[in-house]
Amino acid sequence: MSPNLFDQWRQGVVDQVERRLDQCLPHSGHVPTVLHEAMHYAVKSPGKRIRSLIVCAAADLFGCDVERAVHSAVALELIHAYSLVHDDLPCMDDDDLRRGQPTVHVAFDEATAMLVGDALQPLAFNVLATQDTTISPETRLQQIQLLSEAAGSLGMVGGQAIDLAQVGLRMSQAELELMHSKKTGALFLASAEIGALCGLAYEESYQGSLRGCARDLGLGFQVIDDILDASSPSEVLGKSAGKDLRDNKPTYVTSFGLIRAQELARELAERTEENLLCLPRSGGYLREIAKLVFNRVY
Amino acid sequence: MSPNLFDQWRQGVVDQVERRLDQCLPHSGHVPTVLHEAMHYAVKSPGKRIRSLIVCAAADLFGCDVERAVHSAVALELIHAYSLVHDDLPCMDDDDLRRGQPTVHVAFDEATAMLVGDALQPLAFNVLATQDTTISPETRLQQIQLLSEAAGSLGMVGGQAIDLAQVGLRMSQAELELMHSKKTGALFLASAEIGALCGLAYEESYQGSLRGCARDLGLGFQVIDDILDASSPSEVLGKSAGKDLRDNKPTYVTSFGLIRAQELARELAERTEENLLCLPRSGGYLREIAKLVFNRVY
Repeated sequence: MSPNLFDQWRQGVVDQVERRLDQCLPHSGHVPTVLHEAMHYAVKSPGKRIRSLIVCAAADLFGCDVERAVHSAVALELIHAYSLVHDDLPCMDDDDLRRGQPTVHVAFDEATAMLVGDALQPLAFNVLATQDTTISPETRLQQIQLLSEAAGSLGMVGGQAIDLAQVGLRMSQAELELMHSKKTGALFLASAEIGALCGLAYEESYQGSLRGCARDLGLGFQVIDDILDASSPSEVLGKSAGKDLRDNKPTYVTSFGLIRAQELARELAERTEENLLCLPRSGGYLREIAKLVFNRVY
Repeated sequence: MSPNLFDQWRQGVVDQVERRLDQCLPHSGHVPTVLHEAMHYAVKSPGKRIRSLIVCAAADLFGCDVERAVHSAVALELIHAYSLVHDDLPCMDDDDLRRGQPTVHVAFDEATAMLVGDALQPLAFNVLATQDTTISPETRLQQIQLLSEAAGSLGMVGGQAIDLAQVGLRMSQAELELMHSKKTGALFLASAEIGALCGLAYEESYQGSLRGCARDLGLGFQVIDDILDASSPSEVLGKSAGKDLRDNKPTYVTSFGLIRAQELARELAERTEENLLCLPRSGGYLREIAKLVFNRVY
């Protein structure tokens, strides 16, 4: 695929997702106005929208266009946005900079940040329940099931709990992988499956490769995050660099060193490639997303 | 209805709901174990299960038995339980006692309490999506829509945001009502409608009375909470008494005095009675729940 074609598609996805995100939030003139203003602030921060890209790429593989998959992408972004707001709070990671901007509890206050997260989460399920009615009720329920499991205590939130409990401890590679497979991987996996379900051509025979691909992309994303955190300045990252080390959190780099972390990223990239080859059109846009993940600098 | 019959039904509902609540949570032996232990702690605390009673009473009015409505009740309890855990946190109401027991952040820690709430919320939507399959997919989606709206920034979380913004301010009766209609009323309303939707005999012609009833029950519950907070000792309440006054929060009692608050409770009870008479069997179990709400001492 030409880089131009992908860039065009990617920009189209990001534009549509951001427009719909804005539309699905109550206007900031609605009471309680500060809460709504803060919700807009939280979802508008200039992210990579990687989960949306995965949703729409998986949908596209099975015959569903961006227009029809965009609500599913929005649901994923809402869950991701809420998790960032809560993760940044003082009782969690206590971070004051996110994507180059003050975090929600810094720009507003702690109580508002808590409530922003609490309100973004049900909105995600609302969007899936009420989305594009050409997607069957059964499929929408399946999507809600996948997202609710990915967001729960056996998924993302469980990963965050393991993360907090590990401060100052040494973790084995298997333990780090378990943590990240929940903390980041669960939503990546849900993105791929929820997106694929939008497409009528999705069949169970593709599930293994799709899931493998999404899982390794999630893990790869995290390994590279750790590498960047250890080796890039804050200006490039748009967040506080070297923070994991200062917070005494085990990462791939602090646990196994930069060299081993880079090797692991390469291994994951290779395994992703194998899975991509088993998908329609050798993975289509998903292949380009894998390049983004494994080659990113911030 | 004889008090015995209602008590028997009520105990049956509470038992079934608590059994299902326990079943739908991951076992506390599952990783992350502390998080799962804290989730069990949060949902097991001995509440009145008033939302479950409303769900099952509304379902019963329209021909659905407790067995079939219990999942919907569980979903409401999960949302309610999460909201209590988050409301009690230091950055919110900062309360250390709830239903006579240490709050979750006291028994565990702040980060765990935050994550408990974050994980209980998606579980509620999971339960609705995957519940009793004799309830049609369309109905389950409608229930998810109702619950997600009730739990969101225009519902419960919005009410909490208004509450926090009003500390130290004087509120008119209309403003207090708006706050409570969101903070408590939204989930009461959702309980009634989600329950009614379980019953095949539910028709739109009943919607007005059912909604009116649920709204006034919610408001009545709050007015009486305010009255009890101002006039009962902590041992009876099972939570810190007089806290609203100390926190400088506007309540019906602090704003209009005990006498006017008691008058208002009576007015709401009368209006509830009018709506109950328009429902099948003059409101059935819902009528008994109204008595519980308006006559409760804790």
